[in-house]
Amino acid sequence: MEDLAEQLDIAGELRRAIEAEDEARLDQLLDPLPPSEALRLLLNLGEDLRDDAFRVMTADLAAELVEEAPSELAADFIGSMDAERAAEVLDELGSDVQADVIGELETSAADAVLAEMDDEDAADVRRLVEYDEDTAGGLMSTEVFAFAAAATVGSVIRRIADEEDEFDRYRAQNPYVVDEEGRLNGVISLRALLASKRAAKLSQIMVSPITVTTDASLDALEDLFIEHTFLAVPVLDELGRLTGVVTRASVTEALAERAESQSLRRQGVIGDELRSMPLRIRSGRRLAWLSANIVLNIIAASVISAYEETLAAVIAIAVFLPMVSDMSGCSGNQAVGVTMRELSLGLVRPVDALRVWLKEISVGLVNGIALGILIGLVAWFWKGNPWLGLVIGLALAINTVIAVSIGGVVPLLLKRLGQDPAVASGPLLTTITDMAGFFLVLSLATLMMPYLI
Amino acid sequence: MEDLAEQLDIAGELRRAIEAEDEARLDQLLDPLPPSEALRLLLNLGEDLRDDAFRVMTADLAAELVEEAPSELAADFIGSMDAERAAEVLDELGSDVQADVIGELETSAADAVLAEMDDEDAADVRRLVEYDEDTAGGLMSTEVFAFAAAATVGSVIRRIADEEDEFDRYRAQNPYVVDEEGRLNGVISLRALLASKRAAKLSQIMVSPITVTTDASLDALEDLFIEHTFLAVPVLDELGRLTGVVTRASVTEALAERAESQSLRRQGVIGDELRSMPLRIRSGRRLAWLSANIVLNIIAASVISAYEETLAAVIAIAVFLPMVSDMSGCSGNQAVGVTMRELSLGLVRPVDALRVWLKEISVGLVNGIALGILIGLVAWFWKGNPWLGLVIGLALAINTVIAVSIGGVVPLLLKRLGQDPAVASGPLLTTITDMAGFFLVLSLATLMMPYLI
Repeated sequence: MEDLAEQLDIAGELRRAIEAEDEARLDQLLDPLPPSEALRLLLNLGEDLRDDAFRVMTADLAAELVEEAPSELAADFIGSMDAERAAEVLDELGSDVQADVIGELETSAADAVLAEMDDEDAADVRRLVEYDEDTAGGLMSTEVFAFAAAATVGSVIRRIADEEDEFDRYRAQNPYVVDEEGRLNGVISLRALLASKRAAKLSQIMVSPITVTTDASLDALEDLFIEHTFLAVPVLDELGRLTGVVTRASVTEALAERAESQSLRRQGVIGDELRSMPLRIRSGRRLAWLSANIVLNIIAASVISAYEETLAAVIAIAVFLPMVSDMSGCSGNQAVGVTMRELSLGLVRPVDALRVWLKEISVGLVNGIALGILIGLVAWFWKGNPWLGLVIGLALAINTVIAVSIGGVVPLLLKRLGQDPAVASGPLLTTITDMAGFFLVLSLATLMMPYLI
Repeated sequence: MEDLAEQLDIAGELRRAIEAEDEARLDQLLDPLPPSEALRLLLNLGEDLRDDAFRVMTADLAAELVEEAPSELAADFIGSMDAERAAEVLDELGSDVQADVIGELETSAADAVLAEMDDEDAADVRRLVEYDEDTAGGLMSTEVFAFAAAATVGSVIRRIADEEDEFDRYRAQNPYVVDEEGRLNGVISLRALLASKRAAKLSQIMVSPITVTTDASLDALEDLFIEHTFLAVPVLDELGRLTGVVTRASVTEALAERAESQSLRRQGVIGDELRSMPLRIRSGRRLAWLSANIVLNIIAASVISAYEETLAAVIAIAVFLPMVSDMSGCSGNQAVGVTMRELSLGLVRPVDALRVWLKEISVGLVNGIALGILIGLVAWFWKGNPWLGLVIGLALAINTVIAVSIGGVVPLLLKRLGQDPAVASGPLLTTITDMAGFFLVLSLATLMMPYLI
């Protein structure tokens, strides 16, 4: 519990610094920590102290924490500041982060903050928030490293070497050459920049760039960055003007976020819940998913209800019903997992459904027979009736084949139908394997009734 | 089904090119495709034709596909070639990829391939395969961009501009300055390189580098790349010699792979299954996990077995048993999902377990009461007995609070105990919520028996 003691210590110091409105002390405590750790400590202080902390600390540090936080949380922070302070903090951040955060605010709060911002920045943000999150427009930042065709290599290098901001930009993107209307004419490779004389004009060494438009999808961007090694791709508007740049890093980050949110939705968590959100939102979002699940459960349970007579006659079956449906649900989930992995690696497509199915049937037969024998023996020795073992074992064997077939193929079919396979596969699978499992056990038991009682 | 027609077409062409051993045609078909798509098509041809294809195509293309494939699959490809061909293909790849692939081969096959490789490369690979996969040693590549302190800025720029390989290296790492024994003395920032005169000596502009040792963990590397913006970090051996470089890209990739394999293990898929693997391996790995799951299921089922008398008296309860355990399992899984997300964002640590628990209890109470009322009404109207509704609804409400408590806190406790929370949380949660659900329904029913029959 050393951790706890240490943590209480820092928490106490933080609290005192915030209450004393001691900006220097607060920065001294938080700045050396990794941003995620600083965030965690602030979140633990509770909402009021946390908001005070954001008021007291330097705009620089606040900006760093806003950038680190998931955007719903970042919007909470910014929303708690007065508009002037919010604009000051946002000013330290790139236009893409500004747009992400402001996009999460209520309209009136967003307008107030935008009114305090630099006019040009505010216009950029207003434009950026219009784009879909997972498109080039939504991912780009508007800060571009642009030069006129008549500029020299020397002038580019001077800008890189002299200005901190420009240097950061240079590490993330190539210099672009634009004409007076802002249309993109060429791009300068790093190599050309290094190998050319400083007096050379950019027009002499520029090459024709690969570009995307603002509506390019995240998938298209992923493919592009896999195919090419460059660090950023310029984004053009409908008139061919350079409106922004999407970096490899922002595409990687967006892909990771999408993967994570899919994996959460697979578990029934919708909308990126954080425990710092209000109870109403957290509970409401989870309930929405659970209520839909109740309906599926009722459908499955109606199968049991239809066989109540059989159950009443052989009550031992009730012991094994959940086991059969749970075990085959697990087998089906394994197949879903493998298909999702192969989908994300690009090794299967919807058109491969038949091949996947055949592969799964063979695993399903082997595992179904193995598990069927195992659980059959358990049932036999537990309840002392070999026929009960046969019913349970046979039901599990057949249901395993059904489950892996559905688990392997359903994600591909959902993908084909334009649905998100990550979200819908699980509940669909569970409902069908539950229904099929209950039906198999109970109908086989009804058939073999004379041997069971 | 346009897709299918098109695909059969390419598949036929591929088959013909492979059978005719037409290297040029094969490259012409596969090279323009994204590597993952080319891989997918080859995998669909079956093992024999796929191996033939790797024999026929250019070493260049084979290397590209080997690099794209997950490493178990890449090892299959390399393992199917004779040692000379394998060495030729591997020669096109970086030392880190070489080591990943050779590390997956059987010892005898690995030795045969290493014997055919360039002596120096082979020695590098032998050294690299010794390191743990998720350490700086396992992630680094041995190709470093190293210079003597007496070298000039001009000579560095010439090497970047003149040699293709050196240029790629330059994009991923900074120039390092080493002494005659190979010890790292300094690093040259990109900015210094651009801003300095070409005649300047590296010793004049180098700065002291941030370094790691070969045993640095993936987590430590992640923190380092979050804290600093550089593209690569130099790796030192115990004598302070520069032995390799870990790039930001390789850390990002390793983190993504780890996350994916955790999410798969959560579904009971262990060891990165691909459907192109032999049935024996696929079925065996899945069975290992499922068999352990049977044991947990038997434990939960024994609760039902203990109450067979109650069940026999009120058979309608059997209809609702799986529903209560499934619904609370889902609630618990939502809590696991949120905790796993907050863990990966760094917003909670094991020491926060109590705070997380309190937050979950409030969600559990709200959702438990809501779902309890819902399912209680369903039970009442379905079976026409308000007391049955009360038993089922109350059981679900209580079990929901139990489930979210366990789901929210267990991943933190597992982390504290040094276990992988992604793998163990799910089965543990399901077993406990099943047991608790069965127990609550059946013991409440036993208590209220007079009103139920």
